[in-house]
Amino acid sequence: MQLIIGNKNYSSWSLRAWLMVNKAELTFEEILLPLDTPEFYREITKFNPAAKVPTLVDNKVTVWDSLAICEYINETYMNGRALPKDPVERAYARSISAEMHSGFNALRNEMPMNIRATRFIELSEQALKDIQRIDQIWSNQMNMVDGGCGWLFEKWSIADMMFAPVVMRFKTYQVKLSPLAQQYLDFVLTDPDLNRWIDEALKETLIVEIDEAGIDV
Amino acid sequence: MQLIIGNKNYSSWSLRAWLMVNKAELTFEEILLPLDTPEFYREITKFNPAAKVPTLVDNKVTVWDSLAICEYINETYMNGRALPKDPVERAYARSISAEMHSGFNALRNEMPMNIRATRFIELSEQALKDIQRIDQIWSNQMNMVDGGCGWLFEKWSIADMMFAPVVMRFKTYQVKLSPLAQQYLDFVLTDPDLNRWIDEALKETLIVEIDEAGIDV
Ligand SMILES: N[C@@H](CCC(=O)N[C@@H](CS)C(=O)NCC(=O)O)C(=O)O
Ligand SMILES: N[C@@H](CCC(=O)N[C@@H](CS)C(=O)NCC(=O)O)C(=O)O
Repeated sequence: MQLIIGNKNYSSWSLRAWLMVNKAELTFEEILLPLDTPEFYREITKFNPAAKVPTLVDNKVTVWDSLAICEYINETYMNGRALPKDPVERAYARSISAEMHSGFNALRNEMPMNIRATRFIELSEQALKDIQRIDQIWSNQMNMVDGGCGWLFEKWSIADMMFAPVVMRFKTYQVKLSPLAQQYLDFVLTDPDLNRWIDEALKETLIVEIDEAGIDV
Repeated sequence: MQLIIGNKNYSSWSLRAWLMVNKAELTFEEILLPLDTPEFYREITKFNPAAKVPTLVDNKVTVWDSLAICEYINETYMNGRALPKDPVERAYARSISAEMHSGFNALRNEMPMNIRATRFIELSEQALKDIQRIDQIWSNQMNMVDGGCGWLFEKWSIADMMFAPVVMRFKTYQVKLSPLAQQYLDFVLTDPDLNRWIDEALKETLIVEIDEAGIDV
């Protein structure tokens, strides 16, 4: 199995798929293609007509897009266990995952993932609304989970994978959250797999100008 | 089972979920909330904290977002049959569905679904790239399917649901496609379920100004 990803500092969609294969404890070869270079395009099109990372190659199967990769791994290798078992929670987890996947464009455009940076940024009204909605999703789940295991449901799920890049964005741009949402963010930041990704991101030196928004603080 | 949708003329995401419950031959009550009205917001928040349509309520289960609804119905009522069985095709169908779900923002913003209209519109370079990629996805599948059943895979699948609103957009703005992509579009436009939706859209009278882009032709 090969997982093709972008730079760890910047590639938010790659982070989701990479976390997922790690959480599923699958053995894979990592192929990192530097974003925004001629090499990227030349190499990615060998694997994937959509020319995007993340892309997973599993023998004859090629699957791209972070959510499709999560669903594929869940179905193929985890017997559905990467989503809550209870039907109400399961539908809820799918809803917030797909909601995240298809929306929040203001947040995405204005706050690019940039793990190594700590920045201040002026946000649009729409981006502030996006943050508010994510705060609501997170804090609502923290309220629901008995004892609070830390993840959004009783154990890690696809939903946590989908929100991991947002955790990194909120850290970089020091977004002020409600206490329960902050509790979720703090918990995710202790995850050992995520910390391996962060460590490797911090070793990278390539700069992608378009993702360098905000003022250093 | 209740499906909450927006105006049939405009609500592209609603169309996907509505087609899906129809294709799955489920009995459901349809609740139509007029977009962009105070009533919309007041009513939708009773069902769904994300305050968006489509929303499906199935006894205790609430699921929103068009892709999540498709996956939910596939898993709960169709034993997975709404995606191709062959693993390579299945992963491919998931990939193009999720790719559609998370991208194509230029196309979406510049060409709002507006079933009753026939329009000319000046498109950005990015929107043209979006069209090109969709043309590639469709024509590639038409080339692959032996005998050409019409749908993207051997029978209708979630992927067709995800692209149905794009079919309507391309019709409204008279987008020029390659012959094989046009063949797919023409086929989808003969679907009886879609035609019921279109007929009901044509009876609507409410105007949502923001979705009235382009010049009448
Ligand atoms: N829907 C996709 C989006 C993937 C995506 O846009 N990836 C970016 C990097 S994070 C990319 O490959 N960009 C390269 C390009 O567009 O040329 C997913 O969730 O995987
Ligand atoms: N990710 C969602 C998007 C849903 C969405 O944005 N729906 C629009 C109507 S087509 C809506 O509810 N708009 C009302 C609002 O934003 O207030 C999906 O695929 O279902």
